[in-house]
Amino acid sequence: MEIIETIAELRKRLGARRGQGHTVGFVPTMGYLHEGHRSLMERARTENDTVVLSIFVNPLQFGPNEDFDRYPRDKERDVAVAEQAGVDFIFMPTVSEMYPQPVNARVTVTGDVTTKLDAVSRPGHFDGVATVVSKLFHIVQPDRAYFGMKDAQQVAVIRQMVDDLNMNVTIVPCETEREEDGLAKSSRNVYLSPEERAQAVVLSQALAKAKKYALSQSSVTISELKSLLVNHISTAPLARIDYAEALTYPGFREIHTWYPELGTELIIALAVKFGNTRLIDNVILSGNQPFIR
Amino acid sequence: MEIIETIAELRKRLGARRGQGHTVGFVPTMGYLHEGHRSLMERARTENDTVVLSIFVNPLQFGPNEDFDRYPRDKERDVAVAEQAGVDFIFMPTVSEMYPQPVNARVTVTGDVTTKLDAVSRPGHFDGVATVVSKLFHIVQPDRAYFGMKDAQQVAVIRQMVDDLNMNVTIVPCETEREEDGLAKSSRNVYLSPEERAQAVVLSQALAKAKKYALSQSSVTISELKSLLVNHISTAPLARIDYAEALTYPGFREIHTWYPELGTELIIALAVKFGNTRLIDNVILSGNQPFIR
Repeated sequence: MEIIETIAELRKRLGARRGQGHTVGFVPTMGYLHEGHRSLMERARTENDTVVLSIFVNPLQFGPNEDFDRYPRDKERDVAVAEQAGVDFIFMPTVSEMYPQPVNARVTVTGDVTTKLDAVSRPGHFDGVATVVSKLFHIVQPDRAYFGMKDAQQVAVIRQMVDDLNMNVTIVPCETEREEDGLAKSSRNVYLSPEERAQAVVLSQALAKAKKYALSQSSVTISELKSLLVNHISTAPLARIDYAEALTYPGFREIHTWYPELGTELIIALAVKFGNTRLIDNVILSGNQPFIR
Repeated sequence: MEIIETIAELRKRLGARRGQGHTVGFVPTMGYLHEGHRSLMERARTENDTVVLSIFVNPLQFGPNEDFDRYPRDKERDVAVAEQAGVDFIFMPTVSEMYPQPVNARVTVTGDVTTKLDAVSRPGHFDGVATVVSKLFHIVQPDRAYFGMKDAQQVAVIRQMVDDLNMNVTIVPCETEREEDGLAKSSRNVYLSPEERAQAVVLSQALAKAKKYALSQSSVTISELKSLLVNHISTAPLARIDYAEALTYPGFREIHTWYPELGTELIIALAVKFGNTRLIDNVILSGNQPFIR
């Protein structure tokens, strides 16, 4: 495994691999790797000849009052985890390698997918994500790119970008990895105090409850689902709800009532704060006749 | 030479060429090919193993009151011109092939380069250009792409996009081709009445005069240059000036005075209407010590 810091060097090395007929799998991350990332890397390893992991905490996707500066970093541990997962190249650029001049060209994604959920409390976030992923795709030119479904809205934004701009890459969404009690794995979990950590289990519990209820009915109103989520999360005294929503997936449209037998997919999504730490989680319900995408 | 109408087919054919080690040169156009396009295709022919010409009148870059519907089209003649210039593939997609669904992801370019000159009278135009060129680059994945300098601002926008988004393509700007009397070749010249056509020569004359004057001085104010342009164009009774400007190149910054010996490049640019037909032209002055880009 090699650590590469410049775009030119990575292009050179990947060009050589491609010249040997290699397919390239790509896992873009912000580092501080956990089991979720490991499962992406392992899947990429089984499906491609060459695997590239990028570690780049992208300032463009953080708001002015967000945690860019205190976002957790641990290069040494990340390198060990990547090596163990069978990564060939870690791309670890500096901010000035990625943004040598003020950014004037961006990728922007409009529509429901970027006006709901995380877009509300994190204005500009998804344009920052789309722009950096577009840059990384142009640098790595992967055949396949792997993303975790904990960030389901991010996956939808990136799919929209890839489809609309005809990017020649297959987006592979991968299931959320969880702790034993159900908490979705996240680099930000490290911020939680022991008390907060214990109470954070309410996110996955609330989602499981909402899922079970929705699938047991022939129809369910979104307001019922929201009440159920809010009531369960309220059992955790340290939890403050940012949003608790249910929308169509992958369209992120608001609906009044969900009918499982119609086959429309539904995303039930949560963002909950514990102190300064904001956790997200979601579950996607397929209905009885999964919508063919 | 082959005419290809779908993205999938073009990707397949170019993949095969690339598999043989071919480099790919790309000339994106809106068709109604003239000598300007021919020179781009011929240059692409000498510098690449495979040459792709695209012909696509892109609705996204036309404003609601612009000439999308009446933009001139002549498929038969275009095919003959392309064949003669040695093109391998003409990519000629339908609007629904390029835009199968409402466009939600776009490339936007901000800064001086998209707020001056053509950006003022054509709001949204350059985002439409950047978005379609981004799509075409993702489809064709060229090594080199060729653009005419008559559209100098377009070239600057595309360079900004390629640089900021790390697109792996070399942009090759090519000199403006001209009629014998100096009129810049353009698909829109066909709209001109014989009287308008005769008077349209004032654009290139005014630019030549301004250039000669600027290079003969040790310093020249932009307002002097503008007066010179306006005065000369006013000798054509049918001409209505949209803009007559001089800005730094490629930054498109406003300055008060230009000093040739400082080596900053200057673009002197015109947009002039004859009836409903809007013509543009420009000249770029290098100064005595051309700025190294």
